[in-house]
Amino acid sequence: MLSPYEFIAEKQRGNSHKPSEIHDFIQGFIEGEVHDYQMTAWMMSVFFQGMSYEETIALTKAMIQSGNRVDLSNINDPTGDKHSTGGVGDKITLILAPLLSASGMVIPTIAGRGLGFTGGTLDKLESIPGLSTALSIDEIKDLSFRNGLAFGAQTDDLVPADRRMYALRDVTSTVRSLPLITASILSKKVAEGIGSIVFDVKCGKGAFMETEPEAIELGQWLVNCAERFELKAAALITTMDEPIGRTVGNWLETEESIDVLRRKYMPPDIVELTESLGGTLLMLAGITGNIEQGINRLREAWNNGSAFDKFSQAVNAQGGDTGVFEENHGIYDQPRIVIPLTASKSGYISEIHAREVGYCGVLIGAGRKKTDDVIDPTSGFIFKKKVGDFVQQGEEILLIMGNDESQCKTVHNRLSGGVTIMKKEPAKTPLIRKVITREGNFEWLDYRNSK
Amino acid sequence: MLSPYEFIAEKQRGNSHKPSEIHDFIQGFIEGEVHDYQMTAWMMSVFFQGMSYEETIALTKAMIQSGNRVDLSNINDPTGDKHSTGGVGDKITLILAPLLSASGMVIPTIAGRGLGFTGGTLDKLESIPGLSTALSIDEIKDLSFRNGLAFGAQTDDLVPADRRMYALRDVTSTVRSLPLITASILSKKVAEGIGSIVFDVKCGKGAFMETEPEAIELGQWLVNCAERFELKAAALITTMDEPIGRTVGNWLETEESIDVLRRKYMPPDIVELTESLGGTLLMLAGITGNIEQGINRLREAWNNGSAFDKFSQAVNAQGGDTGVFEENHGIYDQPRIVIPLTASKSGYISEIHAREVGYCGVLIGAGRKKTDDVIDPTSGFIFKKKVGDFVQQGEEILLIMGNDESQCKTVHNRLSGGVTIMKKEPAKTPLIRKVITREGNFEWLDYRNSK
Repeated sequence: MLSPYEFIAEKQRGNSHKPSEIHDFIQGFIEGEVHDYQMTAWMMSVFFQGMSYEETIALTKAMIQSGNRVDLSNINDPTGDKHSTGGVGDKITLILAPLLSASGMVIPTIAGRGLGFTGGTLDKLESIPGLSTALSIDEIKDLSFRNGLAFGAQTDDLVPADRRMYALRDVTSTVRSLPLITASILSKKVAEGIGSIVFDVKCGKGAFMETEPEAIELGQWLVNCAERFELKAAALITTMDEPIGRTVGNWLETEESIDVLRRKYMPPDIVELTESLGGTLLMLAGITGNIEQGINRLREAWNNGSAFDKFSQAVNAQGGDTGVFEENHGIYDQPRIVIPLTASKSGYISEIHAREVGYCGVLIGAGRKKTDDVIDPTSGFIFKKKVGDFVQQGEEILLIMGNDESQCKTVHNRLSGGVTIMKKEPAKTPLIRKVITREGNFEWLDYRNSK
Repeated sequence: MLSPYEFIAEKQRGNSHKPSEIHDFIQGFIEGEVHDYQMTAWMMSVFFQGMSYEETIALTKAMIQSGNRVDLSNINDPTGDKHSTGGVGDKITLILAPLLSASGMVIPTIAGRGLGFTGGTLDKLESIPGLSTALSIDEIKDLSFRNGLAFGAQTDDLVPADRRMYALRDVTSTVRSLPLITASILSKKVAEGIGSIVFDVKCGKGAFMETEPEAIELGQWLVNCAERFELKAAALITTMDEPIGRTVGNWLETEESIDVLRRKYMPPDIVELTESLGGTLLMLAGITGNIEQGINRLREAWNNGSAFDKFSQAVNAQGGDTGVFEENHGIYDQPRIVIPLTASKSGYISEIHAREVGYCGVLIGAGRKKTDDVIDPTSGFIFKKKVGDFVQQGEEILLIMGNDESQCKTVHNRLSGGVTIMKKEPAKTPLIRKVITREGNFEWLDYRNSK
């Protein structure tokens, strides 16, 4: 058996690890024989020297073996999940998971918290008073079996190696490594016990991967490695330049998701993302023969109210106060400070910089600077206009909502620079760009029409 | 001020650090704001991306500022020291330091312990019963002032950053980085408060740097950076293929050094290294006008007994039992086990592999596997033959001396493979190869004759 020193030195020299060596290193890390300072030195070596698919798969396996898995073998319906690489205003999981569940799939979501400038599904859900996402592996299994839907958080016994490795990567600049990203995402998804997965790999100004080639490369890593775990997988490359939907902020986004599930209003970007990701997953899972049929199936569950019922059921099962679904429930006070950002001139909005909005959200309490920061559920932004809309000078573009006046003013100044108005109507960037499957990369519309 | 994360990310991207940023990072490390796992990630980035001389000098300064310095400003005589990159049987400091001190220099040695396959000056000295090297900065200063000679260990208040960084490098495979090696060595030497230094950069089978180009590169780093701290410096590139002198082992080497200081016997390699390093340092320090005069000065101190008196005085001042200088002192028992390694055939000895000898020394207790291992002072090897000597089949080449029979037998087997006998007399490799100064690199003999 290699010592931790020798293991690090091998990767440092650019050599490949054997699967058993990777297993021993991760096992040693969990048992305390490999120290944090050795793990970070190794991960930095991986950053520079890379890893093959084979090594990444071995790492993923070793990470999964650091904890327990959700056993869904007693469930007959197809199981699956969606994973997003993170965006601003990305509330799609809240809408898509109940839609899929109401369409015949079992969705044992294990979601994450906001990090950096991106929001997190768990933070949004937990803005529903009483709702707990601290589910044990048995509870996730049980809710999946009974309701076909669960919203859980990564627990101490589910891929504990990933939790600790991610925390170290986050403070040592080793997040941006394709093999490490792939193993981190996949280990949790495989441990969920699901049979199929659709990845939403975002690219653009409000995404972790800013360029399309980077996003495509990550999509290929995810899909190719997922296949090795008998996970049917596809990755959609989607545009993340302006915030998704009409809101950013935890309770604001949850409220928006409830409205969308109830079809009170249907922001086109939310609908397109939800249908594209959901239609693809229903096809992968074999519920429908193609994507178009999958989308129709989702629309049915949307129109007949069964998706919303699924969501209510899940919220209720996890202790959430379904009183929030009533009109004028009065559970939250309106934030104390509401400052509109108005148009400095007339013209077309050509940019609402999602990353800026994300960081500004953190400043007014909608996100975390440090992992133990407490979130203000009601603070955030409401977008009255989106990119491509025409505004008159002085017209409101967005509302800044928070509870600290000076922070809201700081954010007002900063966001003025994040919104651009032009004379000419801006060109449209497609929202769903490409799809990555194990057969190759395709233009989204070609693929959607061919399947 | 950059966060530790941002600082690591800068180096990871291949950017240069500003001196103030390096200072803040090291200061943060000492104060506990920069964690070990961030330090190792940064050091691994330095391993891959390198650092400039400017960055290395800033790092050295920041490391020195992590503790206190020896203030030798009240001393009028030239101050200096020698540093070796580590070898097998390398007892030169024990002989050279008193010779230099007896030649008019003040030598406040701060020495190290054995590590890996190499021995350490402190371990050798401490085989003298009672002798303590745990000197405070004030004690080093005081002994330097009174006796012109001190043998100290790195204390907690002398470059504590180096102590902690070295311990981390040692277990994360980041020892082999020229900027990190340079900053580690130089920070301690500058903190000693000395005015001139000669580096013994070893290359060969028993050296940290195996090839001459590697050793030359390190020599250049050391000399060029040392000059920036107003340290007059030169580096000798010396051959380290077979163990130096006739012994390896802590008490064995101390005893050999005493014999050499008393001129009881004069192994040619010990004499050549001592004179070359010492002559160069006396010239650098301005005690003599050239190297030849420096060597003559050393020989004087050697012949008239003043160097040996200096050594006795230093041992006495640090609590050592000078009874060991008597014939038949009986302070140590002979090791229980003495196994000769004999020649398997007649011929010339062409190799006694120093690294193998070093590792075998660790096995029989003369060195440490872990930093807290206790050393057996009497175990080691006595070489009856050296490379180039002719042996008859069955003749003794070396003696293995230890207190654990099975370990001694293991070492006997292993060393049989480390000694090579050939029909032909082997070609001689020069012991002192090159000298690196700020004026450039020179062949040793050319330089010695020209100065």
